[in-house]
Amino acid sequence: MSERLDELADLVRHERLRDLREALDDLPVGEIVDFLERLGVQDRAVAFRLLPKDRAVEVFDLLDQALQHEIIEGLKDVDVALYFDSLDPDDRVRLMDEMPASVARKMMRHLDPRERSLTNIVLGYPSGTIGRQMSPEFVAIPEHWSVGQAMEKIRRAGDEAETLYTLPVVDRQRLLKGVVSLRDLVAADADVSISSLTTEADSVDADHDAEDAARLCADRKHLAMPVTDSEHRVVGIFTVDDALDILERAESEDAARHGGAEPLHRPYLSTPVLTIMRSRIVWLLVLAIGATLTVQVLDVFEETLEAVVVLALFVPLLIGTGGNTGNQAATTVTRAMALGDVTTRDVFKVFWREIRVGITLGSVLGVLGFLLVSWRWEWHVGAVIGLTLLAICTLAASAGGLMPILGKKLGADPAVFANPFISTFVDATGLIVYFLIARAVLGI
Amino acid sequence: MSERLDELADLVRHERLRDLREALDDLPVGEIVDFLERLGVQDRAVAFRLLPKDRAVEVFDLLDQALQHEIIEGLKDVDVALYFDSLDPDDRVRLMDEMPASVARKMMRHLDPRERSLTNIVLGYPSGTIGRQMSPEFVAIPEHWSVGQAMEKIRRAGDEAETLYTLPVVDRQRLLKGVVSLRDLVAADADVSISSLTTEADSVDADHDAEDAARLCADRKHLAMPVTDSEHRVVGIFTVDDALDILERAESEDAARHGGAEPLHRPYLSTPVLTIMRSRIVWLLVLAIGATLTVQVLDVFEETLEAVVVLALFVPLLIGTGGNTGNQAATTVTRAMALGDVTTRDVFKVFWREIRVGITLGSVLGVLGFLLVSWRWEWHVGAVIGLTLLAICTLAASAGGLMPILGKKLGADPAVFANPFISTFVDATGLIVYFLIARAVLGI
Repeated sequence: MSERLDELADLVRHERLRDLREALDDLPVGEIVDFLERLGVQDRAVAFRLLPKDRAVEVFDLLDQALQHEIIEGLKDVDVALYFDSLDPDDRVRLMDEMPASVARKMMRHLDPRERSLTNIVLGYPSGTIGRQMSPEFVAIPEHWSVGQAMEKIRRAGDEAETLYTLPVVDRQRLLKGVVSLRDLVAADADVSISSLTTEADSVDADHDAEDAARLCADRKHLAMPVTDSEHRVVGIFTVDDALDILERAESEDAARHGGAEPLHRPYLSTPVLTIMRSRIVWLLVLAIGATLTVQVLDVFEETLEAVVVLALFVPLLIGTGGNTGNQAATTVTRAMALGDVTTRDVFKVFWREIRVGITLGSVLGVLGFLLVSWRWEWHVGAVIGLTLLAICTLAASAGGLMPILGKKLGADPAVFANPFISTFVDATGLIVYFLIARAVLGI
Repeated sequence: MSERLDELADLVRHERLRDLREALDDLPVGEIVDFLERLGVQDRAVAFRLLPKDRAVEVFDLLDQALQHEIIEGLKDVDVALYFDSLDPDDRVRLMDEMPASVARKMMRHLDPRERSLTNIVLGYPSGTIGRQMSPEFVAIPEHWSVGQAMEKIRRAGDEAETLYTLPVVDRQRLLKGVVSLRDLVAADADVSISSLTTEADSVDADHDAEDAARLCADRKHLAMPVTDSEHRVVGIFTVDDALDILERAESEDAARHGGAEPLHRPYLSTPVLTIMRSRIVWLLVLAIGATLTVQVLDVFEETLEAVVVLALFVPLLIGTGGNTGNQAATTVTRAMALGDVTTRDVFKVFWREIRVGITLGSVLGVLGFLLVSWRWEWHVGAVIGLTLLAICTLAASAGGLMPILGKKLGADPAVFANPFISTFVDATGLIVYFLIARAVLGI
């Protein structure tokens, strides 16, 4: 498939636009999206304009947000209105969040009044909340209705609602009483009462954190969840595909930050080299500045180093092992927090577990290190290395387990907080421990 | 919430089982799952047995697979049959894959014949394929039917089918012609033909890689996708919540391996310390053995070190920066591959991008390094550090970008392949480059 997409890219490059238009006609919408996401900005704009209007709208819907943004910027106002109108209110708000306020305002003016008021509902919630990501287009069923009445309402709703498969059930005050599934409605007779088909609903408050809500939707295997206000009135709904989007974005961020870079928020091959460089340089500088601590520590112990140069040979191995141990612990705990298995209240449980894991790991490595180094150099040096490995592993595992939790308590992204702090902390303290042990054992 | 769960855990610990039973009665199913996933094996078994049968079945369905396994092991055969029967065929197969073959066979014998034959269909596909993860319980609609006929069939299907919201449309040979959504069926009149409502379907072959298929389902925002055999006949369906499961498992694996550990495949707090230790020790040893390369490199250059001890001060900073740069590149490319933005055919594009990113990053850091070190020590040493930073960043970024692609080409998990190789490779080659530059500039 990727071979075929490369051939299409060649057609753009050689400006064989008629051939490209024909080729695109045969391609399913999903593959057109893959194709566009691999092109540069200019080429993508050219290829996108070749699509017939109705297909273009479908493709636009599926495109990565950053690319939607670029395409919107390259279009005339009339066309902008077309694409903007075709989006669901929640997707529209997400796109607006990426654009300069002036452009966003202009686009709002072009919307028809109904779409505009729906969009305003979503815009009323702070970003990062599920209210900002939900869809205000839902069909609620009063609990005192019959299945027949409900089906009539559902038929009339047609394309307007975000989903018809999970329907909030409300009382006369519009308070959420549960949900009913279209599946159950279809299977039931017309005169059955809605309240008899209603099941308990997990719902989320509109002010709730979007990632948490998405995680809940995925864990509980819901196709959609009602969103309520503080009085438990239904204000919107959000669906599992929105949840997937939110989780995927969160995971890309975690992955990037864990690797010490800012997330790109767009497909790799479509990202300019300078943007990639910018996503990395800040973290790299922060980490390098942190690493200057190691230079200072070594500077303090320079005399010890000069006395026993052989100690310098093990520096990369020791701090590397410390970093690895810390990373393992931090990764496990970060992931467990992302999955909701560990919360900030579990800090002591995690600390106690990681200390024990660290001691066990350190004992294994320490014994091996002692034997190997004693055999190749002498047993004094072996003892220094063995003891240091034990100390560093314990230190690194417990620090690595704590960092993500501390980070979260301080309101930072656990993934960010963990990585730079662990490498800096473990490298510097590890070296201090190393030289203190060396001085004690070797009597320098 | 987590506070409340801790109180419940205290009830188990103090064996106040009557109070616990009452407390569990008030708790929604989802929270019971959260509660059980935080307990140890023994306590979990105790708490689980307190649930009334119908709630227990619901809870069992939502539990993490590793924990389902443990609960099944602790039950009598009659009860095992109950829980095993309550699972969907695809979930049942996933659980069986975790259990010893003898136990799995015994459980199959307890199933009713219909469930057993459905389970056997799924068991017929190799593990790792989407056939193994799909549900064989689907409702297919013949294309020559009317909406009325289809709705009749759907009503009769009731609870048996995995989903009724996306229905495969087939011709008289049972070949897949597309899909029709329940939403469209409900909105249409009874005499409308199915073929007029059928839309183009993305489908996957049953032998297709499960993670790829799940990614496709998520990217194209499908609620469900038909699974076909090699002749394009429909053999099953898989739904977006299965896709979410598969992707979450894959992300957990990537995250763990990226942090240099094996995935736990179960909630952190419910995992014994020794299991955690075992998930880490192998990688830690592999990485430590890799790191002995640095000891050897330093050993070779020991004379240079003895001549200019100040060179030792910068070793952690230089290899740390190299490791960070390599990690950034590897993380970005691994994530892009997981999302399908980059394939193995893009190897040269990625290499060329990362070389340029590396040179840019290296230039910035190199100039800063040169200035700072020259100011604090002397300009010769500054020049060595500056040049080394430039070389190491370029080397690390390009190697970091290539590793995941090479790993995939060799059939390994890109996340595994990238991490150990980058740290080992960059540390060792970085040190060689450092000392060669130092010898040349300082004339040693």
